[in-house]
Amino acid sequence: MYKLAVVGATGLVGSKMLEVLDRKNIPFSNLTLFSSKKSAGTEVQFKGQTYVVRELTEEAAQEPFDYVLMSAGGGTSLQFSPLFEQSGAIVIDNSSAFRMDDDIDLIVPEVNSPKLNRQIIANPNCSTIQSVVPLKPLADRFGLERVSYTTYQAVSGSGIAGKNDLSNGEQGLAPTNYPHPIYNNALPHIDVFQENGYTKEEQKMIDETKKILEIPDLKVTATCVRVPVQDSHSVAINVTVKTPATVEEIREVLADAEGIVLIDDVTNNQYPMAVNSTGKDEVFVGRIRTDDSLPNSFHLWCTADNLLKGAALNAVQILEQLHQTRSESHV
Amino acid sequence: MYKLAVVGATGLVGSKMLEVLDRKNIPFSNLTLFSSKKSAGTEVQFKGQTYVVRELTEEAAQEPFDYVLMSAGGGTSLQFSPLFEQSGAIVIDNSSAFRMDDDIDLIVPEVNSPKLNRQIIANPNCSTIQSVVPLKPLADRFGLERVSYTTYQAVSGSGIAGKNDLSNGEQGLAPTNYPHPIYNNALPHIDVFQENGYTKEEQKMIDETKKILEIPDLKVTATCVRVPVQDSHSVAINVTVKTPATVEEIREVLADAEGIVLIDDVTNNQYPMAVNSTGKDEVFVGRIRTDDSLPNSFHLWCTADNLLKGAALNAVQILEQLHQTRSESHV
Repeated sequence: MYKLAVVGATGLVGSKMLEVLDRKNIPFSNLTLFSSKKSAGTEVQFKGQTYVVRELTEEAAQEPFDYVLMSAGGGTSLQFSPLFEQSGAIVIDNSSAFRMDDDIDLIVPEVNSPKLNRQIIANPNCSTIQSVVPLKPLADRFGLERVSYTTYQAVSGSGIAGKNDLSNGEQGLAPTNYPHPIYNNALPHIDVFQENGYTKEEQKMIDETKKILEIPDLKVTATCVRVPVQDSHSVAINVTVKTPATVEEIREVLADAEGIVLIDDVTNNQYPMAVNSTGKDEVFVGRIRTDDSLPNSFHLWCTADNLLKGAALNAVQILEQLHQTRSESHV
Repeated sequence: MYKLAVVGATGLVGSKMLEVLDRKNIPFSNLTLFSSKKSAGTEVQFKGQTYVVRELTEEAAQEPFDYVLMSAGGGTSLQFSPLFEQSGAIVIDNSSAFRMDDDIDLIVPEVNSPKLNRQIIANPNCSTIQSVVPLKPLADRFGLERVSYTTYQAVSGSGIAGKNDLSNGEQGLAPTNYPHPIYNNALPHIDVFQENGYTKEEQKMIDETKKILEIPDLKVTATCVRVPVQDSHSVAINVTVKTPATVEEIREVLADAEGIVLIDDVTNNQYPMAVNSTGKDEVFVGRIRTDDSLPNSFHLWCTADNLLKGAALNAVQILEQLHQTRSESHV
């Protein structure tokens, strides 16, 4: 039984983490909820008990926790994750702050396992998580040459502020979170732009995919677009495999893979959709077909709940994975 | 001065055709508006005059017209376009019925010109039109090897019924036009599915691109997705050119090209967007960057008003192109 802390407990992902901890009956002896000063004092119900959210301070981060689920943005994570770590906790961090550090594990439990050189484990980018889940079994079976992502990302990826921009847009109000309207629009701009013309979101998908799949020379490219959808990301994945494959073989591999639901019956208009993915734990894959413009290439359409598998659920699954590894090592 | 008919005059594209004819002061001696039996009798205002919409019958299609702008679906076009043609008219048809016939011109005036083996000229698919406008100057300058499209298509591409599905969805009502909700969703399904797993919309983009650009061996692939946007399509275009090019050279070529507005200033958050394209005649292109996962490859983000450049405007531009060619040949 562990001492658990959730940082960012009043945010969109933090609330989902609590929901998943509850639903999965994750065992712990003690739960502490942290937030920024602004939200401190908020009362949160969990399994019939009331928790008062505490302000996260440097002192608090030196209290003894076993696990910290951190969803509070890059700056907060950079400041507090190392403190929690020094005090002996394992931090599972939803921000991008540590993801690409060489000694930091970047984990999707269906795909890879932590080495724990550091006690900070990074939860990957939302769109990346749902994409590597189907790519991993394809990599194992056929090898991967190239991946091209084109995304349709929900506003909940930007937290409550993103959701408000869309809802307010429906009422004719101007955006306050995004630089342009998201209502009635497709916004080819997620996170900030880099020198190379890619956004950081696109760069995350490129870099994190290679790291998680442990294929450093994999060719990856991405175009990330926000669409007026409240929840669940859709990703059009174009994948080139190394050894020849058929659509039927790819379907078989994905149908057998952990964490994936194959929905690929177009004659009955059945394919993955954002509206049907919301609230679900799995990654949905369908519309599998050959891309005849490149050798050994295929199109996949992939959807998932960006707050669950794309964030909170994956973080809790990392926690479960650690529990299990530790239990096994104690046998 | 010509006798002009507009078929489907009460529909979304037909109404836009009238708007463009008015705005561009297209000269004609006589205007006749046709619709299905259902909408016949509707009164339409045009330049201060009231026109009563007539039912399109086989007899009416044998009246002498010089030009017919046809936007009434494939079945109606198959039945009536040849009758108009036999009676001496040039038909500019917005349906897909004749587009891929060998003797039929498929025209985007910035890109190609009609040969008039038949007097039926096809107006291409909406997403294709806006995509070939930037691809043509790139083909001329660098040669094209491969094109991969991923689309974000507005509901007005499905006519009034599509627009109603989205508006009604905002009010919590179920869809009646699409097989699934478009509100709060991304629908990877436009037009019907074919045996090869592609939708007809995707196949149109593939086949029509090769025909319009007159590059039969061009490798083209497409994923077409409907998004909850009322007007203007966005297309993520991935293009592989034959001779090496730089981002700067591609920008220069597109900045000089007819019908294109280059918006590519990401440091100031300036890029093409559906909301800014609606009501505009041009094709907007931006977010130009190298795709380092393939040799000589680039990403472009391209938006346009699907009812204007993607349909009504392009049809009227074909009419203007014909006028001009005929005037020149009379000099």
